[in-house]
Amino acid sequence: MLTELQNHLNQKFAFLKEKKLLLAISGGVDSMVLLDLFRLLNYDFAVAHCNFKLREEASDLDEKLVLDYCLKNQIQTFSNSFDTEKYASLNKQSIQIAARELRYQWFDTLLEVNGFDFLLTAHHLDDSVETFLINFTRGTGIDGLLGIPETNHKIVRPLLIFSREQILDYAVQNQIIWREDASNATTKYLRNKMRHDVIPILKSKNEDFLNTFQQTISNLNDVKNLMDDACYFVKSQVSIPSKFILELDIAKLLQFKNHKAYLYQWLKDYGFKAWNDIYDLINSETGKKVYSEKFVVLKNRNVLILDRINYQNHNFFLIFEEDNSIVSPISLIFESLKSEKLEISNKDEICIDEDKLIFPLKLRTKEEGDYFFPIGMNGKKKISKYFKDEKFSMFDKENAWILENGNQEIIWIVGHRMDERYKITKQTINKFKIKLTQ
Amino acid sequence: MLTELQNHLNQKFAFLKEKKLLLAISGGVDSMVLLDLFRLLNYDFAVAHCNFKLREEASDLDEKLVLDYCLKNQIQTFSNSFDTEKYASLNKQSIQIAARELRYQWFDTLLEVNGFDFLLTAHHLDDSVETFLINFTRGTGIDGLLGIPETNHKIVRPLLIFSREQILDYAVQNQIIWREDASNATTKYLRNKMRHDVIPILKSKNEDFLNTFQQTISNLNDVKNLMDDACYFVKSQVSIPSKFILELDIAKLLQFKNHKAYLYQWLKDYGFKAWNDIYDLINSETGKKVYSEKFVVLKNRNVLILDRINYQNHNFFLIFEEDNSIVSPISLIFESLKSEKLEISNKDEICIDEDKLIFPLKLRTKEEGDYFFPIGMNGKKKISKYFKDEKFSMFDKENAWILENGNQEIIWIVGHRMDERYKITKQTINKFKIKLTQ
Repeated sequence: MLTELQNHLNQKFAFLKEKKLLLAISGGVDSMVLLDLFRLLNYDFAVAHCNFKLREEASDLDEKLVLDYCLKNQIQTFSNSFDTEKYASLNKQSIQIAARELRYQWFDTLLEVNGFDFLLTAHHLDDSVETFLINFTRGTGIDGLLGIPETNHKIVRPLLIFSREQILDYAVQNQIIWREDASNATTKYLRNKMRHDVIPILKSKNEDFLNTFQQTISNLNDVKNLMDDACYFVKSQVSIPSKFILELDIAKLLQFKNHKAYLYQWLKDYGFKAWNDIYDLINSETGKKVYSEKFVVLKNRNVLILDRINYQNHNFFLIFEEDNSIVSPISLIFESLKSEKLEISNKDEICIDEDKLIFPLKLRTKEEGDYFFPIGMNGKKKISKYFKDEKFSMFDKENAWILENGNQEIIWIVGHRMDERYKITKQTINKFKIKLTQ
Repeated sequence: MLTELQNHLNQKFAFLKEKKLLLAISGGVDSMVLLDLFRLLNYDFAVAHCNFKLREEASDLDEKLVLDYCLKNQIQTFSNSFDTEKYASLNKQSIQIAARELRYQWFDTLLEVNGFDFLLTAHHLDDSVETFLINFTRGTGIDGLLGIPETNHKIVRPLLIFSREQILDYAVQNQIIWREDASNATTKYLRNKMRHDVIPILKSKNEDFLNTFQQTISNLNDVKNLMDDACYFVKSQVSIPSKFILELDIAKLLQFKNHKAYLYQWLKDYGFKAWNDIYDLINSETGKKVYSEKFVVLKNRNVLILDRINYQNHNFFLIFEEDNSIVSPISLIFESLKSEKLEISNKDEICIDEDKLIFPLKLRTKEEGDYFFPIGMNGKKKISKYFKDEKFSMFDKENAWILENGNQEIIWIVGHRMDERYKITKQTINKFKIKLTQ
């Protein structure tokens, strides 16, 4: 007779039968039950075991248990040892975060190299409650209160609807051998504290707590889906077709009472932290910017622009005649010169013949084959040669900005050397100053 | 020098200075601090104290403390004693629910009778965390995870951003006298369990837990607002102008992937419980209904209709010729009779002259001045007289259904007596049967 767990797999996860699976098996009771179930039900799978070398001999015994089981049952096995403590210390991470990162990096590689369709883990309902409470304790938004997802890209968690108790019962009834992780018993970690001290209280106050929890996160998932609908509807109403990732019409945005909450939702995955600065952009002057590590939000007249900052990927920024604010990691000021006097005081400024400019100008990093006519020199020079002669470091070269005219001629290696062709001559009628300010 | 609490009140609750306030004061530390603050800052207020008679002498001493303080400071006071245990037992409620109901019923009356603008309570941030965790433990949706609101209609909670600890500090520093509620120390109640056993663990794992919590519920409030936007946008797209509370175009509704979640949000305040039955209406046959205590959802061809069930308020239901499903608490079947034979077997059926019908018919309860021509009698009779002669109870009278023709003539007191004018005669060409089925 099939158990409840087996039935559930047969019904809900039948689609996995035709797939090539990788099971993440630690040797603990949850993963050994997962392993036993998938072996009994004849799925096509291999096993991956991580030895984090955190509990000396115990870690090696865990590994041996998994390898022995797989050898006996002729299951293909991948095993990997990590120097987790060293990795954590190098990356200034907690041991738990480091182990998680190492584990998933390796799993990703295994999936890709060996063509597995899905990675399966043995997470269960109690894990999901713990995750909810951990996120709640640390502070979170709706995403942190949805529990662990049953499927998430290539990860599937077939035991997620079952409690720790149900899994333990299955293990005992089916005489499954597993190893206890001694670190699970301590309450040093937040997760264990939740497991041993908090959740038992909640369960004592509601006999049906785990089912209640499932209903609660199902309700919250619905809420999240409707919120996502709202974000999509409103974005389609306030965004403008654009070459940028996102371009928002501020006047239209302000028609929505919850415009700050929408901005947050649209921008939250781009690494920004200074949310109040972003909200302030709505009323700030043109050209004001807020940066994350890889992205920037810019106020430009009546729009907000989200774009990627990309110093190295031959990304470029266009500079229009009527618009002196550009989305770029450096600021240039453009100014028509009224006086006859040229006040060029340093390498951060150039004075050029305005009538030779063809807008839009382009601000970009170096490209293969670039050359220019260094001012004061006779003839042209490859940019790569110029960089070499000036002893630019690799980093300097990759981060040097080049200002290109609309006819593809180089006007200026910004902050370094301008082009002979653009200098002021006796024929020059209109003079133009460009100044680097950051 | 003003304390942090006083400053907060002066800044954030200055608008209360011009209002007439009622302070709910139990005699515990939170409410005595609230009282002291509002007295010091010269707000215009009176005090209300509830004696729930649950802790014998202790309850009376609480009351005495509050009354003494108010007498000494010449503050108008309302005090009320409740037999809470009896009320709880009569209404089959927990003591806590009963006390809450009694309290707010009385406060409502005090506000209305005495013209107070707001009721103020001393809830604080720890109360809000407790409420979150209680709701989470019992199962909830987004509404249960928003903490206690700072203002809610006529209730204002000026201390909500402060922790229990801050309030206690203020009490000690300002030598405020209060009484401990001994029942707060037990962990019998879920709230106390959270307070004494769960929240201290969360605080031990995050020093800044209370601020974190405020940020989390602020995030969730944003999510709730965006979800409400989505519900509003989608409702405006799928609803049809209608005489009913809500009429939804099913085809348009089905264009939204999350249509069940929308239905839930639109209907959740109408007392429905059988949500799957409601979702099933989408694909069910015309005429299928799901009831709550006071409302009904009906599938009618290509729409879903939400309407109030109202037996007694002279509410009525229209019956259109082409449509034999009506939103009403009784079901009538209409049938043109092909045969010559009349098969009237009981009072639940009538057979009438079809050509005299003027659609829409109206199904309604009795109205002042109603009369009809009882079949077999000569002349007209007031409905009230008919009810009396037939010994209808008050309940029978109020729940009797009357079928009215489009010309306002009464056709049938449903299930009782039809009208002489509509009977089959020798002149009748088309015959029509109406049958009551529930």
